[in-house]
Amino acid sequence: MNKLYVVGIGPGGGESMTLQARQILESCDTIVGYTVYVELLKSQFPDKEWLTTPMRRETERCRIAFENAQRGRKVAMVCSGDAGVYGMAGLMLELSPGYPDCEVEVVAGVTAALSGAAALGAPLMHDFAVISLSDLLTPWETIERRLRCAAVADMAICLYNPASRKRADYLQRACDILLETLEPERTCGLAARLGRKGESCEVLTLAQLRERPVDMFTTVFIGNSQTKTVGGKLVTPRGYPI
Amino acid sequence: MNKLYVVGIGPGGGESMTLQARQILESCDTIVGYTVYVELLKSQFPDKEWLTTPMRRETERCRIAFENAQRGRKVAMVCSGDAGVYGMAGLMLELSPGYPDCEVEVVAGVTAALSGAAALGAPLMHDFAVISLSDLLTPWETIERRLRCAAVADMAICLYNPASRKRADYLQRACDILLETLEPERTCGLAARLGRKGESCEVLTLAQLRERPVDMFTTVFIGNSQTKTVGGKLVTPRGYPI
Repeated sequence: MNKLYVVGIGPGGGESMTLQARQILESCDTIVGYTVYVELLKSQFPDKEWLTTPMRRETERCRIAFENAQRGRKVAMVCSGDAGVYGMAGLMLELSPGYPDCEVEVVAGVTAALSGAAALGAPLMHDFAVISLSDLLTPWETIERRLRCAAVADMAICLYNPASRKRADYLQRACDILLETLEPERTCGLAARLGRKGESCEVLTLAQLRERPVDMFTTVFIGNSQTKTVGGKLVTPRGYPI
Repeated sequence: MNKLYVVGIGPGGGESMTLQARQILESCDTIVGYTVYVELLKSQFPDKEWLTTPMRRETERCRIAFENAQRGRKVAMVCSGDAGVYGMAGLMLELSPGYPDCEVEVVAGVTAALSGAAALGAPLMHDFAVISLSDLLTPWETIERRLRCAAVADMAICLYNPASRKRADYLQRACDILLETLEPERTCGLAARLGRKGESCEVLTLAQLRERPVDMFTTVFIGNSQTKTVGGKLVTPRGYPI
């Protein structure tokens, strides 16, 4: 059996990686990934074979990983953040029946919801929803319904993929849906490029968020009804008596 | 300024910890935590001062951390999984204005939703909700509303604290609420004691989950309408064409 690893490298691919992820990457001879994330790792792991495909070539990327494992290479597929949250773990497992001599192991990492929350304070201390605004693979109506339900449920919300060049107004559209239920003063936050050059954090209201241009390297947080700022940090109380 | 760290140690406190978490724990002289999690770490970090409080003494635990930092100790408060998901990050930040000479830094870790998902396959590949069934600090009506909204939104759901000695039937009650919306055959999963003795995973239907006794060391996953099993693993497709 040829074992392949799908490894979440955390934000930035540096010291936010788990010890297990680092050990696995050190032990592999071939690392497969999205071009941008592979660049974050190359200097840390010399002497590896690096195989990349660009965005929207994910299925091909997975097949390259399986084919190299079949050739006896020790392969890791790397994903930014966690392999199992909008990463490649699912697609690798879906394709695995076509490669019966290969076995896929998923290695969890710190996803942007967690790293962004830590940088902002503690906005996800209570129940929360994680929703991607990308409609490349999901009908926009489904995304709208999930936003409405999360707002009605009074859950904190973490938004992935809030914008791209072709989807410049998606975060604004999402804010308009949330504003049907939530007050404009609702406490929100942004975390961008954590662990990379240009890292930044910002606390703002939902009304301000609606007007704020963001890019695809930004993770967005919308507080629940109890979320507040303490010393500039975003905090959603769990409810402990203090 | 006395800097304190609130550190998520991942599941089990072993190699699922991030490199950053490990470096910080190595550099501290005092580690504060819940009795059970501190036991997982003691053998790995000799020569530390260990300070613990039991469950339901969380505020006292945080104050001990601040008071030791004020005395010039280099302090880390440790939390199982991630510090920012049902951990101590929020309470530490809420208490921080009382200790103006102290600064709190949150260090993210792999929370049980991510480690459990990886062990089961990839159930959280698409939008999901994280909900705790503990009503110690949250009215049960709020929990019910969040369960109903997450089910209507067709999000995958991850349940924390599904049971305890005093709340033996809470998972059953949650399943009954979900069964108002979801079919009994809905694909679900359980992950228990990851990274510790007695680690286990199980794939089952929502109807079976309703009848399944679980304990407080178990994390529960309810798939969305697309979730399926592939080679015994739980997979929620993202939607990539294959």
